[in-house]
Amino acid sequence: MRPSGRSLSQLRDIRFEPGFSKYAEGSCMVRFGGTHVLCTATIEEKAPPFLKGTGSGWITAEYGMLPRATHTRTDREAARGKQTGRTQEIQRLIGRSLRAVMDLKILGERQIRIDCDVIQADGGTRTTAITGSYVALYQALSSLVEKDILKQLPMTDQVAAVSCGIYEGHPVLDLDYAEDSTAEADANFVLTGRGGIVEIQATAEKSPFSEPDFHALLELAREGVDVLVGLQRKALGI
Amino acid sequence: MRPSGRSLSQLRDIRFEPGFSKYAEGSCMVRFGGTHVLCTATIEEKAPPFLKGTGSGWITAEYGMLPRATHTRTDREAARGKQTGRTQEIQRLIGRSLRAVMDLKILGERQIRIDCDVIQADGGTRTTAITGSYVALYQALSSLVEKDILKQLPMTDQVAAVSCGIYEGHPVLDLDYAEDSTAEADANFVLTGRGGIVEIQATAEKSPFSEPDFHALLELAREGVDVLVGLQRKALGI
Amino acid sequence: MRPSGRSLSQLRDIRFEPGFSKYAEGSCMVRFGGTHVLCTATIEEKAPPFLKGTGSGWITAEYGMLPRATHTRTDREAARGKQTGRTQEIQRLIGRSLRAVMDLKILGERQIRIDCDVIQADGGTRTTAITGSYVALYQALSSLVEKDILKQLPMTDQVAAVSCGIYEGHPVLDLDYAEDSTAEADANFVLTGRGGIVEIQATAEKSPFSEPDFHALLELAREGVDVLVGLQRKALGI
Amino acid sequence: MRPSGRSLSQLRDIRFEPGFSKYAEGSCMVRFGGTHVLCTATIEEKAPPFLKGTGSGWITAEYGMLPRATHTRTDREAARGKQTGRTQEIQRLIGRSLRAVMDLKILGERQIRIDCDVIQADGGTRTTAITGSYVALYQALSSLVEKDILKQLPMTDQVAAVSCGIYEGHPVLDLDYAEDSTAEADANFVLTGRGGIVEIQATAEKSPFSEPDFHALLELAREGVDVLVGLQRKALGI
Amino acid sequence: MRPSGRSLSQLRDIRFEPGFSKYAEGSCMVRFGGTHVLCTATIEEKAPPFLKGTGSGWITAEYGMLPRATHTRTDREAARGKQTGRTQEIQRLIGRSLRAVMDLKILGERQIRIDCDVIQADGGTRTTAITGSYVALYQALSSLVEKDILKQLPMTDQVAAVSCGIYEGHPVLDLDYAEDSTAEADANFVLTGRGGIVEIQATAEKSPFSEPDFHALLELAREGVDVLVGLQRKALGI
Amino acid sequence: MRPSGRSLSQLRDIRFEPGFSKYAEGSCMVRFGGTHVLCTATIEEKAPPFLKGTGSGWITAEYGMLPRATHTRTDREAARGKQTGRTQEIQRLIGRSLRAVMDLKILGERQIRIDCDVIQADGGTRTTAITGSYVALYQALSSLVEKDILKQLPMTDQVAAVSCGIYEGHPVLDLDYAEDSTAEADANFVLTGRGGIVEIQATAEKSPFSEPDFHALLELAREGVDVLVGLQRKALGI
Repeated sequence: MRPSGRSLSQLRDIRFEPGFSKYAEGSCMVRFGGTHVLCTATIEEKAPPFLKGTGSGWITAEYGMLPRATHTRTDREAARGKQTGRTQEIQRLIGRSLRAVMDLKILGERQIRIDCDVIQADGGTRTTAITGSYVALYQALSSLVEKDILKQLPMTDQVAAVSCGIYEGHPVLDLDYAEDSTAEADANFVLTGRGGIVEIQATAEKSPFSEPDFHALLELAREGVDVLVGLQRKALGI
Repeated sequence: MRPSGRSLSQLRDIRFEPGFSKYAEGSCMVRFGGTHVLCTATIEEKAPPFLKGTGSGWITAEYGMLPRATHTRTDREAARGKQTGRTQEIQRLIGRSLRAVMDLKILGERQIRIDCDVIQADGGTRTTAITGSYVALYQALSSLVEKDILKQLPMTDQVAAVSCGIYEGHPVLDLDYAEDSTAEADANFVLTGRGGIVEIQATAEKSPFSEPDFHALLELAREGVDVLVGLQRKALGI
Repeated sequence: MRPSGRSLSQLRDIRFEPGFSKYAEGSCMVRFGGTHVLCTATIEEKAPPFLKGTGSGWITAEYGMLPRATHTRTDREAARGKQTGRTQEIQRLIGRSLRAVMDLKILGERQIRIDCDVIQADGGTRTTAITGSYVALYQALSSLVEKDILKQLPMTDQVAAVSCGIYEGHPVLDLDYAEDSTAEADANFVLTGRGGIVEIQATAEKSPFSEPDFHALLELAREGVDVLVGLQRKALGI
Repeated sequence: MRPSGRSLSQLRDIRFEPGFSKYAEGSCMVRFGGTHVLCTATIEEKAPPFLKGTGSGWITAEYGMLPRATHTRTDREAARGKQTGRTQEIQRLIGRSLRAVMDLKILGERQIRIDCDVIQADGGTRTTAITGSYVALYQALSSLVEKDILKQLPMTDQVAAVSCGIYEGHPVLDLDYAEDSTAEADANFVLTGRGGIVEIQATAEKSPFSEPDFHALLELAREGVDVLVGLQRKALGI
Repeated sequence: MRPSGRSLSQLRDIRFEPGFSKYAEGSCMVRFGGTHVLCTATIEEKAPPFLKGTGSGWITAEYGMLPRATHTRTDREAARGKQTGRTQEIQRLIGRSLRAVMDLKILGERQIRIDCDVIQADGGTRTTAITGSYVALYQALSSLVEKDILKQLPMTDQVAAVSCGIYEGHPVLDLDYAEDSTAEADANFVLTGRGGIVEIQATAEKSPFSEPDFHALLELAREGVDVLVGLQRKALGI
Repeated sequence: MRPSGRSLSQLRDIRFEPGFSKYAEGSCMVRFGGTHVLCTATIEEKAPPFLKGTGSGWITAEYGMLPRATHTRTDREAARGKQTGRTQEIQRLIGRSLRAVMDLKILGERQIRIDCDVIQADGGTRTTAITGSYVALYQALSSLVEKDILKQLPMTDQVAAVSCGIYEGHPVLDLDYAEDSTAEADANFVLTGRGGIVEIQATAEKSPFSEPDFHALLELAREGVDVLVGLQRKALGI
């Protein structure tokens, strides 16, 4: 029934390529099927001004999409001179999601900048970005532990994200573009390895949906994230 | 236990003042306790370019906050030369929420612009804005029916919104600023009069929260929205 | 003869509502008939950089208009990404007008930010804003005296403003929108309680006007401001 | 008493160099002492959108200052990415002043763009710009008459401008920078050849000033403008 | 002597991966050693306004760099709200270089947009981008011929580019970052397959250089481009 | 054969007017025929942040064009809110060219800002600007020596620039607008008094050009610059 032939609760082919970047302290090329996102983590030995003197650090994220990552070309945000509301919404979400599994006191007064750049888009770029960013962030933080700058990894849990939606009346896991563009409802779930909820964003695309539908989506997401956190660990060798 | 002395499932004092504006086709000053938002609806007899020739119309929204609506002054976005990511996120949410209860084909090729301006902020400005905008939009659409420009009201349901959160370990309804700033989790629910879900945005503020907690918040929201849609009807005399 | 039925030298219904804002150190909702402006005064314990080390303070002002304050909707400046020339002109005028009755040495190295937001516009928004800002500023400065931060009120006089114009050949006081949009000449006068001139801006709208016409406008303004400063004192209870 | 040794009612050395630009339809390098402004007039055979179909034309103006036109370097507005409030105020004033002596119906649906660029600034740049722009505009309009595009010159009067101020207690004409920077009051007068008032902008710089002082300034301005319009005619050979 | 151990006239390892993008009409991931640039070509069936009615088409280019393509992170241009002068210089160069080998009349009134995004930067990004863009452009144009939209390929020659420089006193071909950052002179050559010069940009980095030095650089470039155009043909199978 | 009647290797009428500006530390109005550029040099006793603590100074340049410097009016960059790519390219070139003949260590931690404003444009504005800026810079630096702030002039050579091109098949020196707009190739050469190359920018305008053509252009440029540096010395009296 799904355009891709997947079963209702089947993820796309998921691949993590940690250490993709030659220069970044942490990086991961993550692919959810045809959606490819390059995530890098850059360590800055200075916290943002609002944290000065608090002993705490920060994780921030930026998100971008190459102009021809999509079916038809999208205007380059740098050329337009501003980021769209969608871009800003996504990069705020990525930052919040990662901070939810951080102990920012242990990180200390430094900042990790996450950059998520969509090389190719086939639905679910924000959830792909969050899932890959965890890997890039883990790498960067590990490097601080290896260099004895930090005594322990300042992470409290794993985090991953996946989209679900109501497609032709059925709850399905991990929407691709063909499904996403016609889904009746679309939800993004950011969940932790131990089962906590970090963020839920559920949106009716055509008409309001019911609570039972919503519960079905949440259940699918839980299953999907369980697979994703396993793959993250495998990619990181932990 | 709540700073305001309210019970866990008690809304603030809610007031709708429809027809507040001398000029707008629809308007409502809405107050959720100390949060005051002026919502206006402006009818434009021209749909946005991407709908040209489709026979469908559009609802769009903008959101702003007076610089001293808050405890400490916030920079004026017009002076800074751009809207923050938060503002863009909120105005996109308001537009989506209202469109979810519209039949845009019946509206025809015209656009309604909703403006939500926060005169005073004490938590929950986005949910207050959605709830009041429904009233302003209803007024504007009614005026089109009264003038025989439309044969029927192009709305399929009522819509209202409320925030809930985990405050000192307890699920509470309709957070004010004192609660919002220290809540463990914060969720905004946009629901319809007939029980449908339009949008859910739930965010862990400090650490991930559990599914049972989430369900408690959804239940509170359902109760709150039932009250709000009743008050909307009363304000509109329908 | 006037659309509103007022006599040539009659002000509109003038109302001051000091302390309108829950948060601001000083505030006043001021209404000149259908023109409603919310003025707030925010105290900052830091002077602008160009005054550093001089012992003097500063008063600055910003001005905005809600998009649907007007008959037809005006684009939101924050969304357009810049303030219009008109807005900048007005906010510079408000700042200069208030500074003209200040002793900035007595104020010391701090800054008062005035925000004037037009909730509804029916002509004369800039003069209304100046007249109401005086009240908000007075409140804010009084609070500094009450807290013993200042030994005395750093004001040297009262200031108020009013517009006059040539309407259908007659000099009239306090133009509303119906008059303003067809007036032959339009002038804004900012005058002090003791009779000084702070600012005069007189503009021929259609064709140049004569010196005697100008003198008639100035005389009307003097009468109007005398009433306004009385109402300011009454509102402030001084 | 004046730093320049001029008498109280003496203009600076005034020079008009019409036809300064090789390309513009009208142009004038105008010098008021050390203040040098290049004014050009460009004819566009298309009125601005808001006049489409009205049969009327428009005059608009832009103003700029070379970065090192001043004692210390001023940031280049093109590099800063926006025009200051002062610049916008001045260019709006220039446009209004010229339109006040135009019959825009006779001009027809075309637009004249005036550009005033300050090559060197020594006080009074806005009044110098208005006075020189009249000459550039006259040239451009004459060329339309010569080419039989217009049957008659669409001007109803001459216009010129001059600043006056209270300097060390005395009303003086045509302030230079040394006077302007310490004057107690500063006023710009835009007057017509036949004695009409186009615009008055009077500002108290330190403390409010009196009505008699203001009248003295207006009288000086009248004398100054009478000289300036004579020099304009001489420069244009009319 | 070179940090990479290459001989003075040796190119880096050059790789072309045509058809890299799933969506673009033409694309090529091009790698000059550690410099990796994704080039895509997007066909638009509309020429830019200035060519309307001329029967001619256009090639335009945009250039960007991922924030962590470099040793230390570079600010994202979309976040800063504008493109740097360097970016604009490079994208203008890419567009000119490709147009130099086009017959824009044969292309007809359509536009090809080239996007060059640097995934990893190790010197020579602009020359790498030009060389890869030729391949992407060729693919896109071939698709128009295959679909019988064009009768023939509207290209008159091949084009490729390479940098050369004076490094520790020696002319060297194809600078990598280690060389580029300390070179005495740096030159970019855009040359055609048949030996024509399209663009030369030579810059003294520390002190002026001599004509003989310049000629040595040009000779090296000629040799390098001969290799590059051969590799382009091989990648395209032509 | 040339529109101006000049011989192939003949410069236009070249004039330097040093000390043109009343305020700038160095200035020169330079004219290459109908191209007139006002160059000023402003001394700032503070180096840019990236040089702090290095003991070195900096030369930076900005470039602008009056809106009606050209045949048809060009939009004012300050009004458009950003500088074009062309402007940025030119101002970067001017800065690099001047720095190439500076000993920035001797200059010490200060910055000279060069402003080049085109009053009238008839081709070759960037080369004219470089040639005139040298004179303005020399004046400013001399003033530092005269005041004993510097012990010696921190310049290592003279620098001047000229454009050459292939016009109707012939290499010609110093293109004016009539030639520039139809030339087959266009090259800008920045050369030093002692024969060094500072910068070469050569561009094929229609189709690629040959190496012999390029060499002919370089030879012409050498001759032209020899004349220009002589005129610079004469203007400076050195």
